[in-house]
Amino acid sequence: MKHARVIVDGQVQRATERDGQVLLPDGRLLAPEAVQWLPPLEPVAPPRTIFALGLNYADHAKELEFKAPEEPLAFIKGSDRVLNGHRRTTRRPAGVNFMHYECELAVVIGRTARRVRRGDAYDFIAGYSVANDYAIRDYLENWYRPNLRVKNRDGATPLGPWLVDRGDVPDPMALALRTTVNGKVTQSGNTKDMIFDVPFLVEYFSGFMTLRPGDLILTGTPDGVVDCRPGDVVVTEIEGLGALMNTIEGSE
Amino acid sequence: MKHARVIVDGQVQRATERDGQVLLPDGRLLAPEAVQWLPPLEPVAPPRTIFALGLNYADHAKELEFKAPEEPLAFIKGSDRVLNGHRRTTRRPAGVNFMHYECELAVVIGRTARRVRRGDAYDFIAGYSVANDYAIRDYLENWYRPNLRVKNRDGATPLGPWLVDRGDVPDPMALALRTTVNGKVTQSGNTKDMIFDVPFLVEYFSGFMTLRPGDLILTGTPDGVVDCRPGDVVVTEIEGLGALMNTIEGSE
Repeated sequence: MKHARVIVDGQVQRATERDGQVLLPDGRLLAPEAVQWLPPLEPVAPPRTIFALGLNYADHAKELEFKAPEEPLAFIKGSDRVLNGHRRTTRRPAGVNFMHYECELAVVIGRTARRVRRGDAYDFIAGYSVANDYAIRDYLENWYRPNLRVKNRDGATPLGPWLVDRGDVPDPMALALRTTVNGKVTQSGNTKDMIFDVPFLVEYFSGFMTLRPGDLILTGTPDGVVDCRPGDVVVTEIEGLGALMNTIEGSE
Repeated sequence: MKHARVIVDGQVQRATERDGQVLLPDGRLLAPEAVQWLPPLEPVAPPRTIFALGLNYADHAKELEFKAPEEPLAFIKGSDRVLNGHRRTTRRPAGVNFMHYECELAVVIGRTARRVRRGDAYDFIAGYSVANDYAIRDYLENWYRPNLRVKNRDGATPLGPWLVDRGDVPDPMALALRTTVNGKVTQSGNTKDMIFDVPFLVEYFSGFMTLRPGDLILTGTPDGVVDCRPGDVVVTEIEGLGALMNTIEGSE
């Protein structure tokens, strides 16, 4: 099942998907453009911890002129103001030279996880979503990516539209990803090309800290990132999960 | 006023300080060892976002053989499982070679802050506390400190005992810090030696993302860090704020 969190009639409501439409608990079926979308995280929103991966697709590492890492290049993002909903806008900061989208498979943790072996990792996952983890590349200095200002802008991580139950995604490691900007395909990849796959990441993170329900892992992006300008409509899409739309707006 | 959050009779209670004792809302005055201490964060616990500073005292940067940074070397920590209370234990992970304490002034944000100028920064601060931001130095690779495994262990950031109101700390940039291990002074410094002071940090962070009530800034540590072993009693202390006690326990 695909779950969403939307605002309708001024109220936050849980919803599910039916034929691409938004099904409310009261039975009403609304068009996607008729609701206000929030990040699809229930029951924990904002998430407790957001992990993100740098350079987790070898082709993207090459694009950024870094060597692929030998272990996960992971960092933590601020947890409650970076996320944004489907069909919303994200601001391009004033005075920056390069803001790029990153289409990423988002993994939502469903059970408390401590020292999980990779063979058991999927048991700890609630489901999946699509993230667009915008980066302000101006501040990306080197391999180790001191990324506070790269990756922690208000509303610069759209997530959604749906949280898709784990059981509805037979193989998360074989999903096509693509991004379009103003309708033109600019990024195309497949989760099979991750350097560190989802079971490895659950094993790795839970090996040194406890993962809890609602934690989010953003698993990195393939190559094909371009600068986004105010007015650009950016759609990040993952096979079976949905298409997440965002529009860039100018700085304040 | 000094505020605490403690467990008494199985209930989480707010408390305040009187003559070094714990004053409960019902008027009872208890000894510090008679209550269970939680991180002193009210009304927001766990905090939304924890910022931490690397190498923010020049002497400590020298100790670790890094140059002092030219701008804040800041990162975000996981927000709800790293914190720990006063008089609790912190685990030394199995198989690591160097776990050190870090006595740090903790700044608690009190008002939503966006693009605050340094001259107004104190208006956005609720108060101060003492943090001990343990580091697993084994995983500290270089200047940029890919620090996920250095700084995100469960319970490895004791905070407390008190949250001290801003108005009770006339000059947070002139406070003596010290750490004792088993009663012997091993670290000694003063907040006046910070490279980037508290008003600068509030201006810097709020310049690119919104700070909210309950956010926490851990402002870095001076030199004098030593390896801690199971059984060690570590007390980090800041002038006027209090003394935060922690005991190291062995790995599971």
